[in-house]
Amino acid sequence: MPELTLVSIVGGAGYVGGELLRLVLFHPHLRLSQVTSRRLAGKYIGMTHPNLRGVTAIQFAQPEDLAACDVLFLCLDHGESARSIERFSGLSPRIIDCSSDFRLRDAGVYEKWYQEEHPAPEWLGKFVYGLPELYREELTNAAYVSGVGCNATVVNLALAPLARSGMLKQVVADVKVGSSEGGAKHNAGSHHPERSGAVRSYKPTGHRHQAEVRQVLGNGFELSFSVTSVEMVRGALVTAHCFLKEVMEERAVWELYREAYGKEPFVRLVKQRTGIHRYPEPKHLAGSNYCDIGFEVDATRSLNHVVMIAALDNLVKGAAGSAIQSLNVMMGWDEMAGLRFPGLHPV
Amino acid sequence: MPELTLVSIVGGAGYVGGELLRLVLFHPHLRLSQVTSRRLAGKYIGMTHPNLRGVTAIQFAQPEDLAACDVLFLCLDHGESARSIERFSGLSPRIIDCSSDFRLRDAGVYEKWYQEEHPAPEWLGKFVYGLPELYREELTNAAYVSGVGCNATVVNLALAPLARSGMLKQVVADVKVGSSEGGAKHNAGSHHPERSGAVRSYKPTGHRHQAEVRQVLGNGFELSFSVTSVEMVRGALVTAHCFLKEVMEERAVWELYREAYGKEPFVRLVKQRTGIHRYPEPKHLAGSNYCDIGFEVDATRSLNHVVMIAALDNLVKGAAGSAIQSLNVMMGWDEMAGLRFPGLHPV
Amino acid sequence: MPELTLVSIVGGAGYVGGELLRLVLFHPHLRLSQVTSRRLAGKYIGMTHPNLRGVTAIQFAQPEDLAACDVLFLCLDHGESARSIERFSGLSPRIIDCSSDFRLRDAGVYEKWYQEEHPAPEWLGKFVYGLPELYREELTNAAYVSGVGCNATVVNLALAPLARSGMLKQVVADVKVGSSEGGAKHNAGSHHPERSGAVRSYKPTGHRHQAEVRQVLGNGFELSFSVTSVEMVRGALVTAHCFLKEVMEERAVWELYREAYGKEPFVRLVKQRTGIHRYPEPKHLAGSNYCDIGFEVDATRSLNHVVMIAALDNLVKGAAGSAIQSLNVMMGWDEMAGLRFPGLHPV
Amino acid sequence: MPELTLVSIVGGAGYVGGELLRLVLFHPHLRLSQVTSRRLAGKYIGMTHPNLRGVTAIQFAQPEDLAACDVLFLCLDHGESARSIERFSGLSPRIIDCSSDFRLRDAGVYEKWYQEEHPAPEWLGKFVYGLPELYREELTNAAYVSGVGCNATVVNLALAPLARSGMLKQVVADVKVGSSEGGAKHNAGSHHPERSGAVRSYKPTGHRHQAEVRQVLGNGFELSFSVTSVEMVRGALVTAHCFLKEVMEERAVWELYREAYGKEPFVRLVKQRTGIHRYPEPKHLAGSNYCDIGFEVDATRSLNHVVMIAALDNLVKGAAGSAIQSLNVMMGWDEMAGLRFPGLHPV
Repeated sequence: MPELTLVSIVGGAGYVGGELLRLVLFHPHLRLSQVTSRRLAGKYIGMTHPNLRGVTAIQFAQPEDLAACDVLFLCLDHGESARSIERFSGLSPRIIDCSSDFRLRDAGVYEKWYQEEHPAPEWLGKFVYGLPELYREELTNAAYVSGVGCNATVVNLALAPLARSGMLKQVVADVKVGSSEGGAKHNAGSHHPERSGAVRSYKPTGHRHQAEVRQVLGNGFELSFSVTSVEMVRGALVTAHCFLKEVMEERAVWELYREAYGKEPFVRLVKQRTGIHRYPEPKHLAGSNYCDIGFEVDATRSLNHVVMIAALDNLVKGAAGSAIQSLNVMMGWDEMAGLRFPGLHPV
Repeated sequence: MPELTLVSIVGGAGYVGGELLRLVLFHPHLRLSQVTSRRLAGKYIGMTHPNLRGVTAIQFAQPEDLAACDVLFLCLDHGESARSIERFSGLSPRIIDCSSDFRLRDAGVYEKWYQEEHPAPEWLGKFVYGLPELYREELTNAAYVSGVGCNATVVNLALAPLARSGMLKQVVADVKVGSSEGGAKHNAGSHHPERSGAVRSYKPTGHRHQAEVRQVLGNGFELSFSVTSVEMVRGALVTAHCFLKEVMEERAVWELYREAYGKEPFVRLVKQRTGIHRYPEPKHLAGSNYCDIGFEVDATRSLNHVVMIAALDNLVKGAAGSAIQSLNVMMGWDEMAGLRFPGLHPV
Repeated sequence: MPELTLVSIVGGAGYVGGELLRLVLFHPHLRLSQVTSRRLAGKYIGMTHPNLRGVTAIQFAQPEDLAACDVLFLCLDHGESARSIERFSGLSPRIIDCSSDFRLRDAGVYEKWYQEEHPAPEWLGKFVYGLPELYREELTNAAYVSGVGCNATVVNLALAPLARSGMLKQVVADVKVGSSEGGAKHNAGSHHPERSGAVRSYKPTGHRHQAEVRQVLGNGFELSFSVTSVEMVRGALVTAHCFLKEVMEERAVWELYREAYGKEPFVRLVKQRTGIHRYPEPKHLAGSNYCDIGFEVDATRSLNHVVMIAALDNLVKGAAGSAIQSLNVMMGWDEMAGLRFPGLHPV
Repeated sequence: MPELTLVSIVGGAGYVGGELLRLVLFHPHLRLSQVTSRRLAGKYIGMTHPNLRGVTAIQFAQPEDLAACDVLFLCLDHGESARSIERFSGLSPRIIDCSSDFRLRDAGVYEKWYQEEHPAPEWLGKFVYGLPELYREELTNAAYVSGVGCNATVVNLALAPLARSGMLKQVVADVKVGSSEGGAKHNAGSHHPERSGAVRSYKPTGHRHQAEVRQVLGNGFELSFSVTSVEMVRGALVTAHCFLKEVMEERAVWELYREAYGKEPFVRLVKQRTGIHRYPEPKHLAGSNYCDIGFEVDATRSLNHVVMIAALDNLVKGAAGSAIQSLNVMMGWDEMAGLRFPGLHPV
């Protein structure tokens, strides 16, 4: 039996940290060393993440007590990873940062979207974007990996084959998201009587994740991007209206996507002619690392118009799951290790 | 056309205050004078209560600017009504206080359940409990009326005929409630990702509303009372297991309840042998002032056991609606005035 | 006191029929004569529409027993109104048909979208499209009025001012809808374990209501139209990405919409810079006849891009409410008569 | 590596069958041989259970084509297992029947609760009740195992230590359940617009699972048992008001339950003084095999009154999970094998 790799998590009180905890605790090659939280130091993990009661007896550690480890996951608030990256890099040879600090390669783009100077621009070039489907080669043997934006990921995976084929002229992407995207801190808008049953325009325009879409898919097409909150805790679904340079038949779209994703362990093409679940749906993906992708070619074809539909769990494939999958790639392990939970039905 | 009665509301930012606003604005005999909120003074009502956008152009007033009026509704935090009751009584000849400050007649009982001395015990005897079904006579010409506890009300209306008949020996009442019972202030437990879809034991024992049940129904039976939060914003449903001194046939229960409530404008007996909606359900009552009551006699009858089931909207019949209904009684108006909205189906 | 107008409803078992019942029963100028349902004939209305228990003692009548009346509402399955229109027109001088049978003016367009010949094409020209905001003049003194498609209506009201201004070049409209749009008949996809919490692509392309949008707004712009079902019973919200021929400043959009809708009793412009409810949301509109409209101008303006957002209750403003409002216009009554319920908050 | 045990599932189209499929496909000692469904024969599993898309390429088989195997799970409609038990026992040396056919040991009790003669009473004595916490010894080396009722299980696990201690005098158990309890077939009551957000009295008295509670816990106490449907797909929570023969301090209850369940792999005692999740909650248990149990001793103690609270996933610990756990016991495997998924947070 091979030795286990020692993992620590900085910032384990939030939702991405909690999901990483779950994945690390059941991963065949990993052993959890420490998980920090300034606010919860000394408390048992199960008090905050009730699904982990009885699964581990570990307590939250003080951030100052963080020790050396083999892999360090950072789940900190925006800006904190960047400000302490020198310290963290001294503690672990491998860092996977789940925040948005190191996702963008260009400090100028970062400044434009986050309205502040990047705290550690010299580090931007050292990080690989942690989306194995599109950066697998770069991830192999990478030392520093960024997380991915959940909304960016559902859009990137939905569009990548079309974008890379050069066929895309214009995209209007409407993303529907659950409440866990907002994180673990409560506010007036997350108060249950206000948020329950809502269909609420969150960002009709100007969502920051567009910057990640542009970085990944390039500037070869026009992009409009809106985000609407719906009644759901986990999950994101994008309805992406794609206008193409030429007409594509359904069969051609199938082939393009099969070629791109046919061997991907966590991308499934979902398109049934009958049944209830004809297109991707986020609810069956809760807890799983799959991104399901489907589409419909506009029958009138007057517009060279295809609607791409993709769904994922924002906390797994859109965050902690892609991080673990990236680690699996970095370490040369089975890419599905620790990520095999398939979701539930019904749920 | 008769002159309108001038109403002001103290504390209009919360959920009961907002519901009172809705009811007052559409009441045929009332005119809204002022609505106060320290935090929101100067803001339009529709910013906080989006259903009232365009319905009124009134802005929240500073509490200090409260002027004289014909009827004053108080929707303040626990203890605040009692501490300022002298001031309020100088501004209006009629006060309806929706807090729990003046519901209990006995200062000792108040102290037991609220763990503090009552701030104005000399006022307790001046208030009438604002539940017209059980205190109609006392409400006629009353000057000071208390609100009612929402959970207390659904239990009181479910049990009153049995309790008054002397048949009750023991009751176990399990109340299921929505999130609006917790009020408009957000907290960790009301954060949508935590509260959505929850079935959460809120008060397995020791809920304060028991004191109101005892005051209304007396001490002639044993009472156990638990409250569980479920996925719902508005509404309360009680499942009350009643153990009787003697066996009662279904027909006898019917007769007892028909006699008690047959002429009540806002109590409906709901018990169908077929169909989807055989018993009371809170969701169709949202926004309405009805309390629906049904029951099932235990077919084995080994226990002299009847399950009473009652449902209402905690913000209407359990709060603002009963307050308006009490005002209608006080003023000698049609008791249904301003309270005719019947709820929606489906919803 | 003026004489009441006698109303009958054909097909009162479904959701639009039930909503019409509620609105008619509380309308100041209407008296309900009959409501028919073949399946439920002889049963009390409250058995099917539990919100109307105790409100009326009327029973469903056999369709054959339908008598003459002043206004006849038809809430039948697709095709049935058209097949029996001669008979119905013999019973009432005014007909408001809530189905899709008489919405389209052109028999060829009907055939294209409904894949069947229209059963009574000679009647198409006699009907006025029942959307008062856009057809008020035609509705005055009209005898035959069609209902409106709920998704069409939310899109039509969101876009009409822009479309009429000639500024629209392209629209991508993504509509989020609740489960009541599917009607009262259960099926595999409406089974609660499958439908609860779903974010389900219902019609990525090809939704029939597009035909109504084209008829109302013309062919001056490209239109893509997708419908996604979300967790909600009542309500529809459209996120409409509008690409304009020229850049429009926020102020210009405001002015255009204020001019178009400033005097409309049931259209509210909703756009707040702060607060929870900055854009229209369907949940506060449940039961109300309002259509709330907001927008965001894309700050980059690189695309001459405005996102219009509109919300309504599909069973009220999207069906029964617009029907009653149309009747109010036809009869010269106060246009808000019977439609003043403002919705609830929280809910 | 040991040889895998060959498993077949009869009746794999329903919700318990689907959940068994998920558990079997990821179980380290099992290999799925066949899964039958008359209606879906020839179709891929993933068409019906979308979470299993891409996980297996198996298709539903015709019931007639069922071959010999090592373990046979039966997930048939009520009565069908019993009518075909001779045939099934010829195909497999071990049978686990998830229906209610073989749960009760006494044909008379069966007849009383199911209003029909048992089709194979001679088989009743051969089956062991499949709840490892209470029948572990009998399950070791058992050949025939029954499933468990989900509501019965949450009540049995909540009460067993108290019942076995002889302290119980009377219990009133109110169970809150999700919609998946009703199975995969749609009906008028499961139609989403009717079922969504419901708090619906399902069985105020007379629920059949009481018979299982009596069989497991005996007749030493009075039992009242009501079931209420709430907005949730998976999950059951019981609020069990227990009246004791003597006063029990909180510490004594703790000790009793720790002694009973301290070594149980799938029972957790949940009782926190602070935090959001102070008592068991079903939502974090979705997909997991845990049963969480907590309690509150009535502070007044006037009634020797303890409220026991327990939660589980009705499809896992209340059905398929207990079946797999029973198999693990039968086969002498690690009892947690294939059942380690801990649930999600938030969800």
